[in-house]
Amino acid sequence: MKDINIAILGFGVVGSGVYTLIKDNKKDYEHREELSLSVKRVLIRGFDCEPNIDKAPREVYTLSIDDIASDTDIAIVVECMGGTEPAKTFVLKCLLAGKTVVTSNKELVAKHWPELEHAAKTGGAGFYFEASVGGGIPLLRTITDSLQGNNIRSVMGIINGTTNYILSGMESDGRDYLEMLKEAQGLGFAEAKPEADVEGWDAVYKLSIMGSMAFHARVPLEKIYREGITKISALDFSNARMLGYTIKLLAIGKKRDGNHIEARVHPTMIPLTHPLAAVRSNFNAVYINGNAVGDVMLFGQGAGMLPTASAILGDVLYAAHREEHRYQTFQNEFEPREPAPIEDDWSCAFAVRVTTVDRVGVLAQISSCFAAENISLLSVLQQPTESAAASILFITHVAREKAMQAALKALELCDAVISVDSVIRVENGQ
Amino acid sequence: MKDINIAILGFGVVGSGVYTLIKDNKKDYEHREELSLSVKRVLIRGFDCEPNIDKAPREVYTLSIDDIASDTDIAIVVECMGGTEPAKTFVLKCLLAGKTVVTSNKELVAKHWPELEHAAKTGGAGFYFEASVGGGIPLLRTITDSLQGNNIRSVMGIINGTTNYILSGMESDGRDYLEMLKEAQGLGFAEAKPEADVEGWDAVYKLSIMGSMAFHARVPLEKIYREGITKISALDFSNARMLGYTIKLLAIGKKRDGNHIEARVHPTMIPLTHPLAAVRSNFNAVYINGNAVGDVMLFGQGAGMLPTASAILGDVLYAAHREEHRYQTFQNEFEPREPAPIEDDWSCAFAVRVTTVDRVGVLAQISSCFAAENISLLSVLQQPTESAAASILFITHVAREKAMQAALKALELCDAVISVDSVIRVENGQ
Repeated sequence: MKDINIAILGFGVVGSGVYTLIKDNKKDYEHREELSLSVKRVLIRGFDCEPNIDKAPREVYTLSIDDIASDTDIAIVVECMGGTEPAKTFVLKCLLAGKTVVTSNKELVAKHWPELEHAAKTGGAGFYFEASVGGGIPLLRTITDSLQGNNIRSVMGIINGTTNYILSGMESDGRDYLEMLKEAQGLGFAEAKPEADVEGWDAVYKLSIMGSMAFHARVPLEKIYREGITKISALDFSNARMLGYTIKLLAIGKKRDGNHIEARVHPTMIPLTHPLAAVRSNFNAVYINGNAVGDVMLFGQGAGMLPTASAILGDVLYAAHREEHRYQTFQNEFEPREPAPIEDDWSCAFAVRVTTVDRVGVLAQISSCFAAENISLLSVLQQPTESAAASILFITHVAREKAMQAALKALELCDAVISVDSVIRVENGQ
Repeated sequence: MKDINIAILGFGVVGSGVYTLIKDNKKDYEHREELSLSVKRVLIRGFDCEPNIDKAPREVYTLSIDDIASDTDIAIVVECMGGTEPAKTFVLKCLLAGKTVVTSNKELVAKHWPELEHAAKTGGAGFYFEASVGGGIPLLRTITDSLQGNNIRSVMGIINGTTNYILSGMESDGRDYLEMLKEAQGLGFAEAKPEADVEGWDAVYKLSIMGSMAFHARVPLEKIYREGITKISALDFSNARMLGYTIKLLAIGKKRDGNHIEARVHPTMIPLTHPLAAVRSNFNAVYINGNAVGDVMLFGQGAGMLPTASAILGDVLYAAHREEHRYQTFQNEFEPREPAPIEDDWSCAFAVRVTTVDRVGVLAQISSCFAAENISLLSVLQQPTESAAASILFITHVAREKAMQAALKALELCDAVISVDSVIRVENGQ
């Protein structure tokens, strides 16, 4: 039996969940894994502002990171504070002191991965962050330890539960974005300040991490195209359904010729028959295509106290078994690679909805805006409106992003067009 | 860069797929993993009967296992022969000679796991078999290296592609079992002698392996309840659909109080809204419930040359990185545990279809057979038939298996009953 002492930084939902899971499963881990885990220290901000403080005995709490970093009994530190500071300073201190760090902090990893990885190597420590992407879904270790025989060609994921909850409600009940956002906030699925989720930032952090691991090249945060869900309307959903599609906020990474990488987060129309279309409510799923394995999908709870704690404990137990050679991270002992060349002129189909004046020759005029950019149309749907204007939905064949941006500019200058109401990218397969 | 020499036993579909994948991805593995993999030897039965013999140069082939077992340059042996002999003798020889063995042979592992594990320990070798369950789906390592913080409460899987292909065709096109079997045979999805698949043996092997790992206790092959799909009819599917269900061949493992394990393979009615209901054609998927992670589903190709080779290469690369401490298997360095107590009186709901004489009081008479065993009914569906007989479908609430067996005996003795036509177990959730 090996004794492993653990410290937890932060005692909110996730930190206290990890504490409880270790306590509740202690005997099972001893029996099954021959590991005796004990939480020796919990770092909190103060004794007055911690709602979970009664969950652990007083003597484990400390206000000072040095009590943890300098404690030679502590082998593994679990960071559950969130945000970049002081989390980054504390994690660097622990790594440099030779303590393996396990974190669920996607913002921290996405923003400072090379520096953290370097500190882990310098300190001879492990650094793991399975819980940072997809919550409880086994994802990052699956990429490094199960699918590593493949060249992964694409990852497409629903990796933000808040936006999936909102979009699922809009899909099934025909409700509006703002109504669903309020419901999600009432249930605690969305923050009072929802921007990080609904504007796609959370998904961008996660795609940066997941894409870097899948493609063995760093996909920098700032190179990822980002578009949130705030402009999606009930009409977009009813149009999509009529054509056999639904709308999801997807994080998409694809490897192109010459190792160029596409990396983008945006609302996406996908066929109702695609396995991702059936991923509803606050569930997450990631669809991976590899050159040997073909299509694989991993599905589960992407957030929440216990699913996140499950992923953290997975990392903790993995690290505890491998204490002999401590410096071993998800990167297979390499430093993070050079940033990948990121492709900003990707190809996909588009759904474009415009409001036009209702007169002879309008359709020809608009179609020529697409034709001028070499974009061909798959289907056109004109529906009657209550006013004198017409609403027309165009679905294109696969086109270049930049060609579409040029066509949209032309449409806006076209005198028959009153407004371009919605532009949604379409993915039909991988 | 570490050089790793590999031998492949057997050069059929899987063996030659592994050879090709190693050759095609060699540079990627060197660049990404700092591992240089070479296939030094391939064991074949003879030079005249190998359809893939042109894929490798003549000098790698050998007819003698001793050329491999005694070659100190060879670190990893990939067994792709199938069946138990001579595969077992050859694998034991390699393990005892200290060579890590990677296999996709579910029958071998399910039947001889303790002996193989013991030989690995004795020889100081690794022993891995990710490809034996779920083909390319990352499953076994996910259980041991990602979900190990959980107590896994249940696994429910579609783990045989042949039967899922047949049942999916019966579901979508209303076709008969025999017609679909012939189609599957024509496409190479079913063997000329299909019993191993359609009678559930293949799924039993896989459930024995997957259940043993999920529940940390050996689930012996011979204790698993087994029922194939040969009796499922088009009528069963149309009845199921009317009630909002479909029918899948599921491999089910559940942990009960007192660590009793349920382990059974049988056709199962599941709600059309269950994620497993959307797993069609020859795809596989496993639905896992853990006490922390909640529900997780892993989906992908359960067979085929490249998906299976993907899982094998995952094991090979994993083992190659961990050559320093060689004896490390899926069991986390423990010997396989004692056989689990297997529960043979499980609980589930049932769908029972009977043909009865058409006269007053029949329904009361039949219902009393269920009532006598304390089985209550959820729904009853009587449909007109062309003859004077009546066909009645009963769906029960959750009942004990043994109570149902007693009720079925009573039904067969009941003079109003002409025949009990179909008994299908029903799972509504986990």
